[in-house]
Amino acid sequence: MKKNSSTKDLNLSNAKRFFFDAKSPFTPKKYSNLKPINFKIFTFKAGFKKGTEDLLIVVFDKVVNSLNFFSKTSTPSAPIIWSKKNNKGKVKALIVNSGNANAHTGQAGIKIIDHYTDFLSKYIGCKKNEIIVSSTGVIGEIFDPKLITKQIEKINFSKDKDLLSAAKAIMTTDTYPKICIKTVHINNYKFKIYGIAKGSGMIKPNMATMLVYIFVEAKLPKMILKKLIKNNIENTFNSITVDSDTSTSDTLVVFSLNKYEINFKNKNNLEKLNLSICELMNDLSQKVIRDGEGITKLLKVDVFNARSNTQAKKIGFSIAESPLVKTAITGEDANWGRVIMAIGKSQEKIIQNKIKIYFGKILVCEKGAINKKIDITKLDYYMKNSIINIKVDLQIGNKNHTVYGNDLSYEYIKINTDYRS
Amino acid sequence: MKKNSSTKDLNLSNAKRFFFDAKSPFTPKKYSNLKPINFKIFTFKAGFKKGTEDLLIVVFDKVVNSLNFFSKTSTPSAPIIWSKKNNKGKVKALIVNSGNANAHTGQAGIKIIDHYTDFLSKYIGCKKNEIIVSSTGVIGEIFDPKLITKQIEKINFSKDKDLLSAAKAIMTTDTYPKICIKTVHINNYKFKIYGIAKGSGMIKPNMATMLVYIFVEAKLPKMILKKLIKNNIENTFNSITVDSDTSTSDTLVVFSLNKYEINFKNKNNLEKLNLSICELMNDLSQKVIRDGEGITKLLKVDVFNARSNTQAKKIGFSIAESPLVKTAITGEDANWGRVIMAIGKSQEKIIQNKIKIYFGKILVCEKGAINKKIDITKLDYYMKNSIINIKVDLQIGNKNHTVYGNDLSYEYIKINTDYRS
Repeated sequence: MKKNSSTKDLNLSNAKRFFFDAKSPFTPKKYSNLKPINFKIFTFKAGFKKGTEDLLIVVFDKVVNSLNFFSKTSTPSAPIIWSKKNNKGKVKALIVNSGNANAHTGQAGIKIIDHYTDFLSKYIGCKKNEIIVSSTGVIGEIFDPKLITKQIEKINFSKDKDLLSAAKAIMTTDTYPKICIKTVHINNYKFKIYGIAKGSGMIKPNMATMLVYIFVEAKLPKMILKKLIKNNIENTFNSITVDSDTSTSDTLVVFSLNKYEINFKNKNNLEKLNLSICELMNDLSQKVIRDGEGITKLLKVDVFNARSNTQAKKIGFSIAESPLVKTAITGEDANWGRVIMAIGKSQEKIIQNKIKIYFGKILVCEKGAINKKIDITKLDYYMKNSIINIKVDLQIGNKNHTVYGNDLSYEYIKINTDYRS
Repeated sequence: MKKNSSTKDLNLSNAKRFFFDAKSPFTPKKYSNLKPINFKIFTFKAGFKKGTEDLLIVVFDKVVNSLNFFSKTSTPSAPIIWSKKNNKGKVKALIVNSGNANAHTGQAGIKIIDHYTDFLSKYIGCKKNEIIVSSTGVIGEIFDPKLITKQIEKINFSKDKDLLSAAKAIMTTDTYPKICIKTVHINNYKFKIYGIAKGSGMIKPNMATMLVYIFVEAKLPKMILKKLIKNNIENTFNSITVDSDTSTSDTLVVFSLNKYEINFKNKNNLEKLNLSICELMNDLSQKVIRDGEGITKLLKVDVFNARSNTQAKKIGFSIAESPLVKTAITGEDANWGRVIMAIGKSQEKIIQNKIKIYFGKILVCEKGAINKKIDITKLDYYMKNSIINIKVDLQIGNKNHTVYGNDLSYEYIKINTDYRS
């Protein structure tokens, strides 16, 4: 949604735009892209999707350390069951296909993975349990492992691809690929962190429903890896929501590439690395939420001065997940009454008369009622922004949390009523 | 949605129909309607809504006993705060306006109610705390109590209205009025139970977000009233969901009209009454869910053989509230993978391989995978029904629960992006 367009234009064109322009308005204008030097990327048109690349194989030069996070769902996909069982944090290769989630496929789904990992392990010469697998797409459909093994045979180590190809090959309903590259300087070392992600629908915390792979060109002990991710996951991937639905296939893997050894006794080094990881995870999670299915506007919900972080987060999600708040944002309606409703529905212990709600910098309600001095013209104008910031000041404590969501548009309905047809 | 229409017709006409036919496909064809004899109904065009009646005043011949249930929200509306504080279960009159919820209106909202209840109490000669009030509509807007007092002056006891007028006057985005009348025979007694309800958006348990008034033409001790409602609320109003949003104004009131005295020492009498109340509450809650905003199909989710009722209910809601399940239903797509996702997202302890899912009578998955013998033509045909029944057999216990929801259509987006404009 363009800023500052005239009201008339927006109202008249909305319905049409939703139907004919499926691209997120937040599509990045340019990409940082590189061909990494410590691992090789291969992508293929395996036939899971029509006409586009849908298979990513990453082969590391040497076996690397990894830290694997999986969905908390009670109906995990076969790749999660398989990877959890087999992979113990030593990785030589990663296989990801998009278009078929290999989820709820029973023993057959596990056998499929056994087949193609067996094939790859022999092809590149590694142990089968040094492979990690992910799949994303439709749930419940069996596929022929030959779709993958036929491509493995085509791996040509002199014809590896760049990061953008990798990010593209794992997309499903994503409207743009998601990449982030950071350079870290520690003492005389200079190394890179590469991240790719996919995710657009079924996004909801517990690791936001998506696939994320982060490659750190440094040797990191497991404890450090854990610390870095736990420090940063809560405010990034666990604070975004598209539709409150959680996938069966959520996976986040961080690979430590054994290249540089860092002295972590120097706390500055850890802090520097932590900052870069934080920036990268924030960037990728923002790219995911800004590609939320059917997004026309990004919703940033800041909850201030709650009794606890848990309370701030719960209220933030209650607002960001409310279909009535989301549709109001789509309709460019500063319907703060629905925000009050969503706060109330959380059933958190708050003091209603203390709540202050702002849309951007505009105070819309305080002391249990509307702010009588609202400048409605200014407020209506604010609602035309492509990023809407709802701030809730509870005034009952000192804990804050920010949740990111998106609006609920005709396009979301279109994408999800049509997905399989 | 008509049964048995051709696929082509349905697919081609969907988008258009959603935009031009806002009526629920479940609109009742006829209404039971009566002018009750133990209480008088008055309805008015007070000016909260444009051109339609929007104010209901019920005056009882004598003071009656009532049992009041209010929303569990932590941001209750002024009518809830006021009624909770003032009314102690003795009622001479009920005032309900639609179009303005008088919610989050602070002390001003309370003063408004003080003003018009004061006026009514003097007009009909009762105590102020013998009045119950409800409001439904937009949140956060102050109104002039004269809108109500001007109508009170017009009350003419020889010109009272029928139940249908009452049900119509409390509607907001409802597309049809909701009434149910039951006749109960106990020994030589024959008396009626009248129920009216409103509710269409913001529907979610904790008393389903709506207004419900039940009038029982019998004298019931408070204990019996409580028992009757508690017996039946869980499987009716607390088992429906339109959009997971909970209103600030939920109210259910049961009035006992002091007319017939029933001997409750005879357990049969209680059972008979319980059955009628159960039927009435079920009928009204069904009328509410079948008028869910933007409904094109009703979704009935049966969860069988769970470890506990709580588990069955949690999983039922997880399915019925999932935007991805709901949009699949709109798209007539038997996407049972999304049902698996929604079961998983509940994070309930289940055994994935034991789950059986049926669409109607058609088994779609078992033993952790798709049922290979599915007759796809039959399944596609089933999805054209206007009521879709998803059955989940968990096979880990013996507790069951049924949740009713509706699909998520373009019409829902239209209603809720346009509501205030």
